[in-house]
Amino acid sequence: MSFDPTSKVFRAHEGGKLEVHSTMPLSDRESLSLAYTPGVAEVCLAIAEDIELARRYTWRSRLVAVVSDGTAVLGLGNIGAAAALPVMEGKCALFREFGGLNSVPIVLATTDVDEIVATVERIAPSFGGINLEDISAPRCFEVESRLRLSLDIPVFHDDQHGTAIVVLAALRNAAKVTGRTLAELRVVVSGAGAAGVACTKILLAAGIGDIAVADSQGIVHSGRGDLTPTKIELAEITNRGGLTGSLTDALAGADVFLGLSAGRVADSAVATMARDAIIFALANPNPEVPVEVARRFAAVVATGRSDYPNQINNVLAFPGIFAGAFDAGAREITENMKIAAAEAIGAVVDDELSVDKIVPTPFDSRVAPAVAAAVAAQARKDGVATAG
Amino acid sequence: MSFDPTSKVFRAHEGGKLEVHSTMPLSDRESLSLAYTPGVAEVCLAIAEDIELARRYTWRSRLVAVVSDGTAVLGLGNIGAAAALPVMEGKCALFREFGGLNSVPIVLATTDVDEIVATVERIAPSFGGINLEDISAPRCFEVESRLRLSLDIPVFHDDQHGTAIVVLAALRNAAKVTGRTLAELRVVVSGAGAAGVACTKILLAAGIGDIAVADSQGIVHSGRGDLTPTKIELAEITNRGGLTGSLTDALAGADVFLGLSAGRVADSAVATMARDAIIFALANPNPEVPVEVARRFAAVVATGRSDYPNQINNVLAFPGIFAGAFDAGAREITENMKIAAAEAIGAVVDDELSVDKIVPTPFDSRVAPAVAAAVAAQARKDGVATAG
Repeated sequence: MSFDPTSKVFRAHEGGKLEVHSTMPLSDRESLSLAYTPGVAEVCLAIAEDIELARRYTWRSRLVAVVSDGTAVLGLGNIGAAAALPVMEGKCALFREFGGLNSVPIVLATTDVDEIVATVERIAPSFGGINLEDISAPRCFEVESRLRLSLDIPVFHDDQHGTAIVVLAALRNAAKVTGRTLAELRVVVSGAGAAGVACTKILLAAGIGDIAVADSQGIVHSGRGDLTPTKIELAEITNRGGLTGSLTDALAGADVFLGLSAGRVADSAVATMARDAIIFALANPNPEVPVEVARRFAAVVATGRSDYPNQINNVLAFPGIFAGAFDAGAREITENMKIAAAEAIGAVVDDELSVDKIVPTPFDSRVAPAVAAAVAAQARKDGVATAG
Repeated sequence: MSFDPTSKVFRAHEGGKLEVHSTMPLSDRESLSLAYTPGVAEVCLAIAEDIELARRYTWRSRLVAVVSDGTAVLGLGNIGAAAALPVMEGKCALFREFGGLNSVPIVLATTDVDEIVATVERIAPSFGGINLEDISAPRCFEVESRLRLSLDIPVFHDDQHGTAIVVLAALRNAAKVTGRTLAELRVVVSGAGAAGVACTKILLAAGIGDIAVADSQGIVHSGRGDLTPTKIELAEITNRGGLTGSLTDALAGADVFLGLSAGRVADSAVATMARDAIIFALANPNPEVPVEVARRFAAVVATGRSDYPNQINNVLAFPGIFAGAFDAGAREITENMKIAAAEAIGAVVDDELSVDKIVPTPFDSRVAPAVAAAVAAQARKDGVATAG
């Protein structure tokens, strides 16, 4: 791709996309002595005596660190920390726009799991929550699970859980418009990366009928000798039908295709799916099943693209999830909180439900407040809230 | 100190003092596809091919990390990361107000030098400069020198160099109003911590006559057996008069007292200073020499307080220094750049110079632009600039 500084996108990115402002005036001696010395010393001493007051008297309580090592950025792959920064700035802009939250991009000069974990642990007192972003699988699983254990603030890998939450919301409504329950659906997931694993787990937790996951080597099953620890776990919890073979084999008679891999699926395989099939082909910009083909064989079609109906966009989830977690002072984001978020997203369009409206659009201003309220309420039920 | 949430200072600090905003609208599909996917991918790829473009197309080029481990916060000592955060937020607010710069507080859950250095190195791709703050001596010296070596962005320990720069600016003008040159002055520095060491070094570089440094054990000289590595170096470069004994011994006949220690000086010792003495008693809130006493014995008096003339306030230095370094795309902040900053600060009041106006007030809007211009010009002379 050629670099054209006069193009619209480069002109828009000049100087970056974020700014930090002060909420207090500093225009005279009095305001300076209130916001800074000597006044600030009182606040410092109060927090030193009771660290919980940091939640109330610093910006950290509603501040998200958007952390990436630049190894799996969009569909671009391992482009490094500096090149990942424009995406992380965009993510922070979305946190502000849709969640009303402060966030700061932290891109890391390391891809080592131990170093990533140690670095985030050491900067954690600066933040109220950690949003992991575009860290490649399988390292992302270990980074997230270790940080969830060691930190007492919400840690959320958006590529996994943001996608999973919106997929669950969409699938619940897709089932509804086609007159079925989740338990009646057999799902085929293409892709066993971050999103594939997380989608599989949340769908199982939500009571889906059965799921077969396929990676580049075919259907994941316990007879395969080439499985990573994550895929061994997948093999244990999925594929109750004992399927072997290729993605094409799995699709025969399946109710749902969930594409998370960019791998193109043959039209003939799509044609073998069950009646009233549901196709979520989320690869960008080229869905695994072209929309025109999907529409020929399926009752409901969703993509990751903004130029078709039913866009599966993480922005429906992460702003409200962090806002709700912060509202409740949640120490973590539980599985129940994720499912509550999915239900809230889906419920926003209950009155408008149709095959072309299974999820709200990204600009639907009802979504983030609804998600925040559901997540905060669930945090209190789950006993992880510290605020009333 | 009792915690009173209804007091003015606590009410002002509710929710913290900083906010992150987006500079681009995200209100519709078109703006979203420009700031985020798919448009942002072009910017990412361009930076991946030429990392220097990160300077132009991300916010990092004008973004300062305000990094502290919470070990030497104001006069409060080692209060920890969380309790240090309100001070660091205030510092960031000052960067915005006076330098027009973005900055983010990073408080660290470690006080180990190796861990601090490694952590800052790993998050460095997110930032354009590192402002170290309130890290206790002598660890602060090693943290700064190691980061200056390993990073190719400005690293500046404000407690050392910010103070030193403003002290040099003030002392140059104090000499001028009393009809002397820096070379004619014999200085006594009380305190051999971060600020004492940095002030001593910048004054020597600027051509001061002689300096004796006193710590809690008396005058630093090479015959003492209790010196840290930093103080051994101090003993080598200071005290050409070969003084031994106490601070009081050093003050006899001295032209300048520079108080950086909070240790009260006896009136009788102050009385032994030379004619037209200069007293900078910078401890807050209680100067080492009370202002009324200092005025009795000295021709020029400066303090750290805002309620007397001649306030020595770091805010005169750090916003313009980082702004100038960023303007020039400087890879570091050289000693010459610090001296150029001091000269620029002092020159702002050239036309108003008097014993009660040796430095501009913190709210003088001429200061930061003048400092920035001088620092950027010096960066280009010193060959550390990357921007024209």
